[in-house]
Amino acid sequence: MGMLYENTGINEKGHLTFAGVDTTELAKEYGTPLYVMDENMIRDNCRKAKNAIDSYYDGKGMCCYASKAFSSVGMCKIVSEEMLGIDVVSSGELYTALKGGFDPSRIVMHGNFKTKADIAYALESKVGRFVCDSVEELSIINDMAKGCGYTPRVLMRITPGVDAHTHDFIKTGCTDSKFGFTLEDGTALKAAGEVIRLENVKFAGVHCHIGSQIFDIEPFLEAARLMMKLLRDIKTMYGRELEELDIGGGFGIRYLESDDPLSYAVHLKAIALTIKELCVDYGLRQPFLMIEPGRSIVGAACTTLYTAGTVKHIEGVKSYAAVDGGMADNPRFALYGAPYTVLNASRMNDNADFTGTIAGRCCESGDIIQENVTIPYPKYGDIIAVLSTGAYNYSMASNYNRLARAATVMIKDGQARLFIKRESLEDITKNDLL
Amino acid sequence: MGMLYENTGINEKGHLTFAGVDTTELAKEYGTPLYVMDENMIRDNCRKAKNAIDSYYDGKGMCCYASKAFSSVGMCKIVSEEMLGIDVVSSGELYTALKGGFDPSRIVMHGNFKTKADIAYALESKVGRFVCDSVEELSIINDMAKGCGYTPRVLMRITPGVDAHTHDFIKTGCTDSKFGFTLEDGTALKAAGEVIRLENVKFAGVHCHIGSQIFDIEPFLEAARLMMKLLRDIKTMYGRELEELDIGGGFGIRYLESDDPLSYAVHLKAIALTIKELCVDYGLRQPFLMIEPGRSIVGAACTTLYTAGTVKHIEGVKSYAAVDGGMADNPRFALYGAPYTVLNASRMNDNADFTGTIAGRCCESGDIIQENVTIPYPKYGDIIAVLSTGAYNYSMASNYNRLARAATVMIKDGQARLFIKRESLEDITKNDLL
Repeated sequence: MGMLYENTGINEKGHLTFAGVDTTELAKEYGTPLYVMDENMIRDNCRKAKNAIDSYYDGKGMCCYASKAFSSVGMCKIVSEEMLGIDVVSSGELYTALKGGFDPSRIVMHGNFKTKADIAYALESKVGRFVCDSVEELSIINDMAKGCGYTPRVLMRITPGVDAHTHDFIKTGCTDSKFGFTLEDGTALKAAGEVIRLENVKFAGVHCHIGSQIFDIEPFLEAARLMMKLLRDIKTMYGRELEELDIGGGFGIRYLESDDPLSYAVHLKAIALTIKELCVDYGLRQPFLMIEPGRSIVGAACTTLYTAGTVKHIEGVKSYAAVDGGMADNPRFALYGAPYTVLNASRMNDNADFTGTIAGRCCESGDIIQENVTIPYPKYGDIIAVLSTGAYNYSMASNYNRLARAATVMIKDGQARLFIKRESLEDITKNDLL
Repeated sequence: MGMLYENTGINEKGHLTFAGVDTTELAKEYGTPLYVMDENMIRDNCRKAKNAIDSYYDGKGMCCYASKAFSSVGMCKIVSEEMLGIDVVSSGELYTALKGGFDPSRIVMHGNFKTKADIAYALESKVGRFVCDSVEELSIINDMAKGCGYTPRVLMRITPGVDAHTHDFIKTGCTDSKFGFTLEDGTALKAAGEVIRLENVKFAGVHCHIGSQIFDIEPFLEAARLMMKLLRDIKTMYGRELEELDIGGGFGIRYLESDDPLSYAVHLKAIALTIKELCVDYGLRQPFLMIEPGRSIVGAACTTLYTAGTVKHIEGVKSYAAVDGGMADNPRFALYGAPYTVLNASRMNDNADFTGTIAGRCCESGDIIQENVTIPYPKYGDIIAVLSTGAYNYSMASNYNRLARAATVMIKDGQARLFIKRESLEDITKNDLL
């Protein structure tokens, strides 16, 4: 049946329930397309991630939520309440985190191109850390930090050259990357010497991120080993022992029944052990450890609901079932051919007698949600659910075809509340001039 | 040098000019990323398209701007003033067209899934035509049109099975498509019999759209032949001579110097001749002819300006030059690997001594504007121009990474004015609740 997670079920009407609520009732009340999120699951994921560091790394670390996966003021408030840190990569994400009540010292400013406006805003907000991709950028931050009233910590983003065997498009740890300092050819070690000399920032540590949607623990351990070697080499070469190690994110989630993600505990147990052993071997103090889960905090905690339109059957070719959303609310199939589990929320107990493509409503052939889906035949008006849409759906949503961006509903303890308002037509045109 | 169009030039400072204005001055005044549009070119394109129908088809037709390419209230006003019709595929595009002053009788409502809310709004607005993709949808419109105060025209969208040899993702005329009635297997002809019987709509004609970015005239002629045969067959089978033929859009534009698009005049001359000859052969009256250019009206009339960040050179691999925008303002490379011409607007006369990838600022490896670009070395702060970004850039733009959507400046007769305001951080969070 492909229910994927324990927070989905089927009620007595044969409807899909999500976080204990009948999804067809939510669709009726809030309209479609609709993102429905599970606050209990989000908080549970935050706690599991935090506890994994606390348990296996003696509490000497911080789990930072990568807010690019899903950012809203309410989401930042939830994450802040769970005592996580947060990654931001733009003034917009920073603004949202601050509005959500984040203590700036727990905000980490990322991004391969922070504009001077972003840097100024981050310094003015006194964000705790910058993760930096080049000496040039570090020099700019150093210059701008002069007299700003505090000394921001900076980490060098390292490209460790680890191939995490993920999709080509979201592979960021390999050497060919727009991000970071290359490890392999000595660029990173050499640059560290320049970063040490910066006077207005504190060179706190190193960072890496090896990819996305990873189901294997070995790439993380390999990255940890390479980063620990770098910390050792920096100490050897410059006599400076750095305090922080950020191992990034990329922990996989279940999109399909066949996906088999590992828990934070399993990951952190192995990562912590690897780092601790190498600290002994290399004679280093245990660095403060950061991880940056985004998708794994929020991805599974959302289901998108659509209303089904007409079915087009092309004899001998295939069938298309139209839904009232598409690449405007979820561009991930168009971008990556991303897999998703699709259900007919209105008739969960019926025979799965339809096989075909779930097509969006945008005026574009590539506007597909998923191909080769087998579900109970979607009658006009049925509610179609797409699971695991919490990450990179709303955050990448557009107004393509001037479609209003969907509303988000948050469910906590069985109670639904509006979490992000549906855009109005006035919203869409409000910046249009003549 | 790759200037592509006559409205680009180099001034005495060695800066790129667009529509007669120094682009680096525009960047300074309005900030980056910035879409800069040329109203004279847009109006000229509208007139050329309209004149082509008037000249070669005796004025018996209408050129409809496909507003999905770029829709804003101001753009709709321009197109309306040029006496074109307009295609809309959602309530949002309809709302924008009406706000731009469009006479509803010149509005054509498209889309493979018009929701009942869309249909109700379109009927209430008294749009001239619906282009429909299934009998089920036509029945819904027919039911809803009862007592609505007028009789909307409807056209059947036909999938003629013509392969226009374009990119897989934007090929819409082939049989395997979410759009329209299949021609090949007789589905379309059979369905026409049902459409004729609908009482509250006027079955006016047939429509097809064979793809995008087409440089060849033959696929259009082949489509015209197939559609004329269908009109003949409908007349033969049902005794009903339809009045309208919509041949769609898909006329290519120049993204690279090697692209060689044909003029509207060349297209329309050949299409008109084909239709006229077949009218004689088949004993049919000349149908009212519609075309639907979108990209070819607006695509070349825009240049995106970015500010350059740092360059990352990976020895033996490649170089990356970062800009302060990316897939959030132009997702077309990420989606299709779309080609674009990139220029260093700040140093047009310098040697092209940099070859590498132009990378966006989103926290994603696939956030690339273009690969293998050769331009004068982009120094930090240089203005980088990407040409031919008028279509499917702003219209597909997102707030990925909570980046504010870029402003649009319109230039008319050498005078620039703000055309779409840059989003504020308040705009981005305005619908966020707790």
